[in-house]
Amino acid sequence: MDKENVKGKNKRKGEKNMNKEKISNLFDDIINLSVKTGIFYPSCEIYGSLAGFYDYGHLGAIVKREWEGRWREYFLNLHHNFWEIDGNTIMPRTVFIGSGHLKNFVDPLVECKKCRSRHRADHLIESELGIKHAEDLTIDQMNELIKEHNIKCPECGGDLSVIQWFNMMFDLTVGPSLGELKGFIRDAEKSGNIDINKLREVYDRVEKNTAYLRPETAQTPYMCFKREFETLRSKLPLGLAVIGRAYRNEISPRQALFRMREFTQAELQIFFDPNDIDIIEGDGCVGDCFDEVKDNELNVHRAGQDQEVIRVKLNSLGLPKKYAYYMAKVYEFLTKKIGLPEDKLRMRELTENEKAFYNILHWDVEFYFESFSAYREIAGVHYRGDHDLKGHSEASGQSLQAVRQEGSKFYPHVIELSFGVDRNLFALIDSAYNVEEAPTAKGGTENRIVLKLPQHMAPIQVAVFPLLSNREGLVTKAKEVYNILTRSYRCFYDASGAIGRRYRRQDWIGTPYCITIDFDTLEDDTVTVRDRDSMKQERINIGQLLKYFNEKFLD
Amino acid sequence: MDKENVKGKNKRKGEKNMNKEKISNLFDDIINLSVKTGIFYPSCEIYGSLAGFYDYGHLGAIVKREWEGRWREYFLNLHHNFWEIDGNTIMPRTVFIGSGHLKNFVDPLVECKKCRSRHRADHLIESELGIKHAEDLTIDQMNELIKEHNIKCPECGGDLSVIQWFNMMFDLTVGPSLGELKGFIRDAEKSGNIDINKLREVYDRVEKNTAYLRPETAQTPYMCFKREFETLRSKLPLGLAVIGRAYRNEISPRQALFRMREFTQAELQIFFDPNDIDIIEGDGCVGDCFDEVKDNELNVHRAGQDQEVIRVKLNSLGLPKKYAYYMAKVYEFLTKKIGLPEDKLRMRELTENEKAFYNILHWDVEFYFESFSAYREIAGVHYRGDHDLKGHSEASGQSLQAVRQEGSKFYPHVIELSFGVDRNLFALIDSAYNVEEAPTAKGGTENRIVLKLPQHMAPIQVAVFPLLSNREGLVTKAKEVYNILTRSYRCFYDASGAIGRRYRRQDWIGTPYCITIDFDTLEDDTVTVRDRDSMKQERINIGQLLKYFNEKFLD
Repeated sequence: MDKENVKGKNKRKGEKNMNKEKISNLFDDIINLSVKTGIFYPSCEIYGSLAGFYDYGHLGAIVKREWEGRWREYFLNLHHNFWEIDGNTIMPRTVFIGSGHLKNFVDPLVECKKCRSRHRADHLIESELGIKHAEDLTIDQMNELIKEHNIKCPECGGDLSVIQWFNMMFDLTVGPSLGELKGFIRDAEKSGNIDINKLREVYDRVEKNTAYLRPETAQTPYMCFKREFETLRSKLPLGLAVIGRAYRNEISPRQALFRMREFTQAELQIFFDPNDIDIIEGDGCVGDCFDEVKDNELNVHRAGQDQEVIRVKLNSLGLPKKYAYYMAKVYEFLTKKIGLPEDKLRMRELTENEKAFYNILHWDVEFYFESFSAYREIAGVHYRGDHDLKGHSEASGQSLQAVRQEGSKFYPHVIELSFGVDRNLFALIDSAYNVEEAPTAKGGTENRIVLKLPQHMAPIQVAVFPLLSNREGLVTKAKEVYNILTRSYRCFYDASGAIGRRYRRQDWIGTPYCITIDFDTLEDDTVTVRDRDSMKQERINIGQLLKYFNEKFLD
Repeated sequence: MDKENVKGKNKRKGEKNMNKEKISNLFDDIINLSVKTGIFYPSCEIYGSLAGFYDYGHLGAIVKREWEGRWREYFLNLHHNFWEIDGNTIMPRTVFIGSGHLKNFVDPLVECKKCRSRHRADHLIESELGIKHAEDLTIDQMNELIKEHNIKCPECGGDLSVIQWFNMMFDLTVGPSLGELKGFIRDAEKSGNIDINKLREVYDRVEKNTAYLRPETAQTPYMCFKREFETLRSKLPLGLAVIGRAYRNEISPRQALFRMREFTQAELQIFFDPNDIDIIEGDGCVGDCFDEVKDNELNVHRAGQDQEVIRVKLNSLGLPKKYAYYMAKVYEFLTKKIGLPEDKLRMRELTENEKAFYNILHWDVEFYFESFSAYREIAGVHYRGDHDLKGHSEASGQSLQAVRQEGSKFYPHVIELSFGVDRNLFALIDSAYNVEEAPTAKGGTENRIVLKLPQHMAPIQVAVFPLLSNREGLVTKAKEVYNILTRSYRCFYDASGAIGRRYRRQDWIGTPYCITIDFDTLEDDTVTVRDRDSMKQERINIGQLLKYFNEKFLD
């Protein structure tokens, strides 16, 4: 996960001059814009936020909902046996023994012996030594590097402890919890005596009641598989989708929406008979579904290859048909349904070293973020084999097998389509952020900040302005226009400030069209429609507005 | 909250003969149906579920999404300055100092001295002594009752501890957590020594990193208020809505969806100038919005009145106009947009004793559940005054005030529209559950279980059956029909089992219409459409099907 690659050969606008300072500025500019316009901002700001927590404001929530709605519509319609489920985020300890998370889901952590601040050893080594992929090092290698290069605490310069593994799941106690330990400590303080055995006993009881916030939504479908499979009469393929929260107690959360402690995933787990790995039974395909996609061209980065991006036909990758088909669908969804610019997107095949041990095939979807000057993972297509159902079956003692017509039993295999919703939204904003030279009213030029979001993803699609807010006739007419359009489009009514300033505010949030109602409107029933990207203005008759926009908003 | 009232005068079907045994059977029957059909079921079943956690299966998730979509559409459209936001469920400790939850959000808890099981003292007293509303007793009164009646542990018969207050919030640690305590205990075990001061220090560090899962979604809008108010240019009213998870570490979770430890709320916080308590600025109202609703008739139960339900005009309640308006809207939403039967719904005014101390006005929306034989809270309309913004302003040191045009400052007041989404879904299922006598194919009768959900809330709206699954012609035609309808309605294709059994399975999940494709279809292009409620069948031409259903599904 989160393999970062400084982009190589395909230069992009402005990149040549981008030094570290500038990249960081762009990132900060994007955050500032998002915070001030209500797209997203730090959570619980008034009390001082905890690191790694961001809330979506009134605009961001619209974009998120739009993204999620499109995801549902696209992926649930791929097959009539694909369903959404909605499960709990708190799950008992036993689940994560079965999934392997209690054992494997850990980060290397160092603590400052002086100020007690904690840091991820791999991140520290990366930033101090300029090494990439430090997470692939062993803990001994990392300890060695810290010692060899005498790396100190980045906060106070103190000495660092040896590295320990830290589990990234949030634990909590169902039923009474830390309170019991607190009572025990109080009693011990009063009496001045303490019984280690008793302390162990109390601690164990607290630990036994431990549950965890799920670190990935995927565990919900695995938990529900048995019930759903039976209820849906044991048919494969079966798809179980979840859009919901997941939680990771990151040691060094960073980069806003990109690495948060609480985040949203959209994941589809497709369960199928491994004998059918070359068969796709989609709905509405004429003949073999694979024929529909086999000639699709994709940007890819093959494992171990130097070339950062090559353009290939899907068919040439030599992947099993079912896997390739869903890879094509993920690619199509992101480029066609969401509208991420394809020239920044690539499918990256992970090397044997990089991919999770249980994945038979593992490709990440990576996006080139201008503000990181690097490709970053925003989704993934994972062929997990029978790892999950087999693991949970063995740990729980429940059979999670299916039976073929001729009687043989097997664990259904899983292809997982996994999306980080927040990362997707950040990719949208990052690629939409533009600063352009624009003429001012006084004949000079100024920098115009404009978010060139795809029209269907813009939080506000049409803004309606009366030229003046104190002229009853203009206001009435503007509200009339607002009322006509608000049934079909996300509209915003704004009557305050100079028109230029109102345009600018809509540019910041990516509103594709602004309508101004002026004195001519009262004469001839026409309004000015201003296009966000070209800044060109047209006069359109109010009666024609709906038709006009129906042609503009094709999706 | 959760005031239970055994229903008094208005008898309902079957109620006369309902003893405790039978009520419990009905509840169990509803749960069994829900579990076996995939509406909801215990979370993480294969490992043995934790009490108080249920997941929505593939059908329940559809109903939940439909409910949420309708809620959004209805409430966000009441005013152009009402917005949805999407915030974190983990919030820092300081938030709950400001909100008062750390002090006030507690349950009375007793522990068995023998088996160490824990119980809510008020629930125990209610079930042991048949007392209602034990939660209104003081802790001394409860201790007295337990002593006086010699109440023992319901699990092992052991003696009970005195009652202690237990905070219902789930705590967790952001950054390293219990692991540190574990390490400390291990070291102590190794050395055989333990330092109480050091233990306290470690414990305090763990506690300081404590955060909580929000116990109500309402805190998110209060946290975001300052930022949103400024971004939206300080206009009132401002509505901030959240649909999302909330968490309560209930000691005795019970009654399936009705009292869960993880649940979904839909809440709208309306911030307004208290001077405007009699003004409603809705969108699209002609003249005074209150005129639209003032003559609406509602079922109400006034505080302290004997009559369980009276029918009154909204206007006669003497409530401030803004409050009354939103009460009418909540009532309209539940009856008209969701389709809960109005004869089971009432608005209940809480007495001074019952309502939260900060609420100026507090009405619950209660629904009569057949399976509890009682009214239970499913929503609420709360005039919270300035309690929230003032409390958070004082605790955080940030100004959360607004300024009137003439310059005076004030804390915006809050009217909260609060819905338990799970409770609403449970109310839908409870009121839809029917057992009817129905004729069998052999000329006898049998009990037909049928979920008479409102058509628009049914998870599947049209089921499509080929008479036989092994006749290519029938299957092709059935898929053709499925493909025509699936674009407009939630459809399900089922080719297995006798037609009678397929009907029954659709009755269980409330599918309003079933279509059968038989040999006549191949001749004349007509199909059989069977109505869930009347069980009547009609022959309809395939070309007319869309039109036919467009007339049936009016909403």
